[in-house]
Amino acid sequence: MDKSQPLAEIIAVGSELLTPSRLETNSLFITERLNGLGILVERKVVVGDRESSLAETFQSALRKADLVILTGGLGPTNDDVTREVVARSLGRDLRVDESVLAHLEELYRRFGYRMAENNRRQAQVPDGAEVLPNPKGTAPGLFMREADKLVFLLPGPPRELNPMMDAEVLPRLNRYLPVRRQFFRQLRVASLAESAVDKRVEPLYQAFSDIETTILSSLGIIDLFFHWRGRDDEALAEQQLGQLVEQVRAELADSVFSDQPEELEAVVGRKLHERRLRLAIAESCTGGLVGKLITDVDGSSQYFLGGVVSYSDALKENLLHVRPETLARHGAVSAETAAEMAAGVCQLTGAEAGLAVTGIAGPSGGTEEKPVGTVFFGLSLEGQVRSKHRRLPGDRDSVRTRSARFALDWLRRELL
Amino acid sequence: MDKSQPLAEIIAVGSELLTPSRLETNSLFITERLNGLGILVERKVVVGDRESSLAETFQSALRKADLVILTGGLGPTNDDVTREVVARSLGRDLRVDESVLAHLEELYRRFGYRMAENNRRQAQVPDGAEVLPNPKGTAPGLFMREADKLVFLLPGPPRELNPMMDAEVLPRLNRYLPVRRQFFRQLRVASLAESAVDKRVEPLYQAFSDIETTILSSLGIIDLFFHWRGRDDEALAEQQLGQLVEQVRAELADSVFSDQPEELEAVVGRKLHERRLRLAIAESCTGGLVGKLITDVDGSSQYFLGGVVSYSDALKENLLHVRPETLARHGAVSAETAAEMAAGVCQLTGAEAGLAVTGIAGPSGGTEEKPVGTVFFGLSLEGQVRSKHRRLPGDRDSVRTRSARFALDWLRRELL
Repeated sequence: MDKSQPLAEIIAVGSELLTPSRLETNSLFITERLNGLGILVERKVVVGDRESSLAETFQSALRKADLVILTGGLGPTNDDVTREVVARSLGRDLRVDESVLAHLEELYRRFGYRMAENNRRQAQVPDGAEVLPNPKGTAPGLFMREADKLVFLLPGPPRELNPMMDAEVLPRLNRYLPVRRQFFRQLRVASLAESAVDKRVEPLYQAFSDIETTILSSLGIIDLFFHWRGRDDEALAEQQLGQLVEQVRAELADSVFSDQPEELEAVVGRKLHERRLRLAIAESCTGGLVGKLITDVDGSSQYFLGGVVSYSDALKENLLHVRPETLARHGAVSAETAAEMAAGVCQLTGAEAGLAVTGIAGPSGGTEEKPVGTVFFGLSLEGQVRSKHRRLPGDRDSVRTRSARFALDWLRRELL
Repeated sequence: MDKSQPLAEIIAVGSELLTPSRLETNSLFITERLNGLGILVERKVVVGDRESSLAETFQSALRKADLVILTGGLGPTNDDVTREVVARSLGRDLRVDESVLAHLEELYRRFGYRMAENNRRQAQVPDGAEVLPNPKGTAPGLFMREADKLVFLLPGPPRELNPMMDAEVLPRLNRYLPVRRQFFRQLRVASLAESAVDKRVEPLYQAFSDIETTILSSLGIIDLFFHWRGRDDEALAEQQLGQLVEQVRAELADSVFSDQPEELEAVVGRKLHERRLRLAIAESCTGGLVGKLITDVDGSSQYFLGGVVSYSDALKENLLHVRPETLARHGAVSAETAAEMAAGVCQLTGAEAGLAVTGIAGPSGGTEEKPVGTVFFGLSLEGQVRSKHRRLPGDRDSVRTRSARFALDWLRRELL
């Protein structure tokens, strides 16, 4: 291992993270970003809000690591102790920063609240610390240099922490640590099994000994990460990564939906927009999840009209004009119903593309003939109507997520 | 806090647990089992297989905790260092145990292999340690008492660790630690700000010095946890917890939606079912999220008919019969449109309850008059139609989640 490679410790603060039901997940995102700069995470600690425990953990981290990132415990209540403990451990005084305070008061005013007195805690800043703006929340982050060590305090909620990591932490790491360039590619794959993907791409990546390949799978989406681990030579790294990615793309063909960290629904949306097609959805077992995913994308109103959540048979008949004979003969969970739902929602809304999902998400409702996980999909595209069938594994939540993703991916493939 | 309550530390060993893609989950199961005996987890650490790091982590844990559980790093390869590091830290010699070795050889023989030489490592036992049988794998666990502290070494794979936790660890905790029963309550609160809740309930919980109160907030939902930390007296604990919960309930009144770990949508579903009301939804900015949440609940087809995702104005007019004059005069994001959407979806579906959401989730689409976060809600309940307006903070995802929860909570309050 390269001796000059900086080491990091991540400390997550909060008693709730020591309960049987809460996983600490911020450290995954942080690790990904640190690894991207060639910084290794040496240790991760979850500690409660007891001050002595946090103080000991922080001091031990500071002795060993070049970089300590603390998350959580920056809120307004009495059990938010991170700011105080770090300041005391470093022998720094804590003072209310008037500009932070003014910003907090403005935030509360804008949302029509008067700021409660305890929120002043969030405006406290240790001597010599830099305040890191938090555009998504109230508690700002803090940055301190202590001898040659770097210390960051970040808020716990991921939607606040993640953008601050990119906008505030990474530039300072680049400035103060001997970070090394990282060469990296990724491919995102849908509607294939992880084992099938691995079997097909293993012979390819095994031939590149300087590239570390990681395969991750989550409910119907598989991520392939390729990290260059050879010498620091951009031309060589790019050439080798390019070759491997090219070969994997050729092997997996249309199953690759992106080489960027973007979601399936963003790719589908772009394709719809390019082809000037408007989409409508007809959802049964997913209950609105497909529409929710599509509208996760800002600007989706340019190609998404909306549609019908037809959780009851009556809505399938009355709104989507699924024929009563179809429901009677084949059932609400059938290829025929899925196809008629897709055609019906196009007719109802005037959309050129209609996507339908009907299935048994469980845990109840399964039969011998149609067990839990049985899902039918309908797609109407410029007047052509088809259906597909899948048997999807997992619990209610897994079946629904896999169903929504399978539907979106089918539409994507048809738009290629 | 009760001084006699034992404290535990969990140390998970393995460099793979320090990568961006791997979550450490064994500690959740272990925590659940420990909490069941009244043992609190004080700290959880994930550490790689570098010996110095593990040694420091283990020694620090042993200083603070009554019980240290290490998981992983007991395998046959060179990076399996847990056994060696713990033995060295405790100043104990490590010897091959002949009966463990014989058992290992027998295991390999049974599966038709000859045992490789490096597997002998798994038969090494520190002086004075007790061997804990591992019926599901090869590496046995180890148990040591060091002064009044307990140390357990367990294998990393959950299918090996979990049964050993129950069969081997728990009986020894019962024997050697002052374990005790746990007394605990929780309340879930919606549509209030965290600081407002804390301000109102702090005077109440401050009066109960033997109860530890924790407040957690996430996108419109606030959890209050009350843990009894006084002496092991069921009648006293129940009486004090009952009193505090009663007082908090009285203070927060209808804002408390449950005293169980259940979701808002489950509570709303139960109320609808009890009152034999059928619900339909009309969603604009949430794009299907309200329907998705309602149908997260198994059995929701008993009270949920479905509805319309009216992402475009055309669908609001043509399907929900929002009047063109309303859209022209007040806009799609308005109290009037929300009310007409709610009434319209009841008319369309025959539902007795109709819930509508229309707003600006951002990041684009905001105006000076209606900035991002402006959301209007419509509710039609047995013919009575009303609307509400909220300005919700956060990014697109936060605004949408808060909107869906606010809508569900409004319906819940109206059903009380």
